[in-house]
Amino acid sequence: MKQLGSQTWQYTTRPVILGSSAVVGPEEGEGPLTSDFDFIYDSLKMGEKTWEKAERALFEKASKLALINASLEQEQLEFFVGGDLMNQIISSSFAARQLGVPYLGVFGACSTSMESLAIASMIVDSGGGKYALAGTSSHNCTVEKQFRYPTEYGSQKPPTAQYTVTGSGCAVIGRDDGTSAGPHVVMATMGRIMDLGLKDPFNMGAAMAPAAADTITAHFRDTALSPGYYDLIVTGDLASVGLPIAKDLLAKEGIPMEQTEFNDCGLLIYDLDKQKYVIAGGSGCGCSATVTYGHILKRMKKGELKRVLVVATGALLSPLSYQQGETIPCVAHAVALEMGGDEA
Amino acid sequence: MKQLGSQTWQYTTRPVILGSSAVVGPEEGEGPLTSDFDFIYDSLKMGEKTWEKAERALFEKASKLALINASLEQEQLEFFVGGDLMNQIISSSFAARQLGVPYLGVFGACSTSMESLAIASMIVDSGGGKYALAGTSSHNCTVEKQFRYPTEYGSQKPPTAQYTVTGSGCAVIGRDDGTSAGPHVVMATMGRIMDLGLKDPFNMGAAMAPAAADTITAHFRDTALSPGYYDLIVTGDLASVGLPIAKDLLAKEGIPMEQTEFNDCGLLIYDLDKQKYVIAGGSGCGCSATVTYGHILKRMKKGELKRVLVVATGALLSPLSYQQGETIPCVAHAVALEMGGDEA
Repeated sequence: MKQLGSQTWQYTTRPVILGSSAVVGPEEGEGPLTSDFDFIYDSLKMGEKTWEKAERALFEKASKLALINASLEQEQLEFFVGGDLMNQIISSSFAARQLGVPYLGVFGACSTSMESLAIASMIVDSGGGKYALAGTSSHNCTVEKQFRYPTEYGSQKPPTAQYTVTGSGCAVIGRDDGTSAGPHVVMATMGRIMDLGLKDPFNMGAAMAPAAADTITAHFRDTALSPGYYDLIVTGDLASVGLPIAKDLLAKEGIPMEQTEFNDCGLLIYDLDKQKYVIAGGSGCGCSATVTYGHILKRMKKGELKRVLVVATGALLSPLSYQQGETIPCVAHAVALEMGGDEA
Repeated sequence: MKQLGSQTWQYTTRPVILGSSAVVGPEEGEGPLTSDFDFIYDSLKMGEKTWEKAERALFEKASKLALINASLEQEQLEFFVGGDLMNQIISSSFAARQLGVPYLGVFGACSTSMESLAIASMIVDSGGGKYALAGTSSHNCTVEKQFRYPTEYGSQKPPTAQYTVTGSGCAVIGRDDGTSAGPHVVMATMGRIMDLGLKDPFNMGAAMAPAAADTITAHFRDTALSPGYYDLIVTGDLASVGLPIAKDLLAKEGIPMEQTEFNDCGLLIYDLDKQKYVIAGGSGCGCSATVTYGHILKRMKKGELKRVLVVATGALLSPLSYQQGETIPCVAHAVALEMGGDEA
């Protein structure tokens, strides 16, 4: 691994995503990416007695499907890097119990998708393991209950609110034997905490936008690339409120984002016109994970996209920190994915 | 980095702990390790209005002191790998906000101390950064309130209960320029989830003992070493109930632990005869962190210990998983520390 600038890692062996999975709930299945998902549950309960057990089932299914899609036996897997939004990341820990391999629990709120991918890729790139699984999950009913109100209350939400994605995305990372067409994990830019003083848990997009802009700025400073290098730059879940703020902030930094397609996973996963209940768009660990591991990787394999930068954003609040009047610390972690051989 | 067996990493550049810190509360300050701590608060409130703000102050002080002890300016620090027991690891995230460097949040319950050290060492060893800070914290009043009962209730506890350490320990990891006497981070064995069906949050030692035994067994299998290689093997926080169980399990595995000093951080930090309120001994992320970064590293630098294996154990339950009748998944992560040059 090579350090570029102060925040970016370049993976010298270009680890490969051998297989990935995206498993979602019924509402995500009604969205525009429906054909990109490996499995769509027809009920939020997923045959379980509690929302938390449902989320665990979702995560366990996604981790199994990723192994199948990677043509890897469970016994071959060596490390699992995972996390989720639940207190003490229980969904991830229970999935780890089922996988039976060394487990590194991580937490970056909704940035967990790219934090886990960056660490799993570091393990493989640095020679620490041949195969590592990165994954995360979120469930609309577990997350809303824990951070805001139980969905059963039917409480009204402001127009800045986002809708937690019910979904789990996992990816199996392996070494490149020199023959792989990709997708390769080529770089990661790890984010700093940005906290501009926002306190409203119903306006995460605005809180997280500065973190996304800071990490994107750091990525282009560290790599000396410009946005046009990428066919797509996609943020984690800024949704309709946060993405324009991130665009404004990047314009002020002089980053020419008009060179590329710049979108947001929270806007891609739902049809905001038809699915009015999602309000400003999707959020949750499962949002960037299922969009990246379902939709984006499929587009890359089809040849539609060669280089993509995924910038997953996370709001690191807890209900308690919010109740004690604290502002929301936010972070964004970016991972660069590329198809094809190494032309560097 | 080199993979030994299936669970162990050998850090080929032998990163150095440039400086560390151990900051504790008044009760730990009354224990036998009092002279090993960098700072002892005389009140559990630490001048803050809530227990959670107190824990954050503790973590922030420890992170600053580790930088001072490492003779490193805050601007030189490149990465922070941290976590804690609070929901959404808020103590760590707020400490990260103050540090202003790229932040990787991790969660392994009380094993977070060695998980964060293993990842920070991987970053430095693999060339991803020159300086990384690893750290964790716990506070008796935040943890008891969140996982069991608020301490203000004064509820009685069974004789298997442990006492959450109020403390934060941090370490600054840097590259070895070939001249350092150490302590070096030489290996890490990452643990698998062990869950033997225990459900009692007042008996963590028994729940975690199989995880400790599994990781110690894996370490000696992967490295082909035997316990006598180490001057001290110390578990995270099994305390008086868990340590004898781990000893029994290791004897059944045929690991000759009688070759070495085998102890537990939860037994070292308090005087169980005098400090009756700790019942079975210490627990919490701050337990293994302050004992390792305060006491053990000082003994290593004095020449009393040359090689130490720290096996931090974590019980990955949440109050909700417990209420829903789930058993407690446990994990243990081990890191091997050595003084002196590389004689391998």
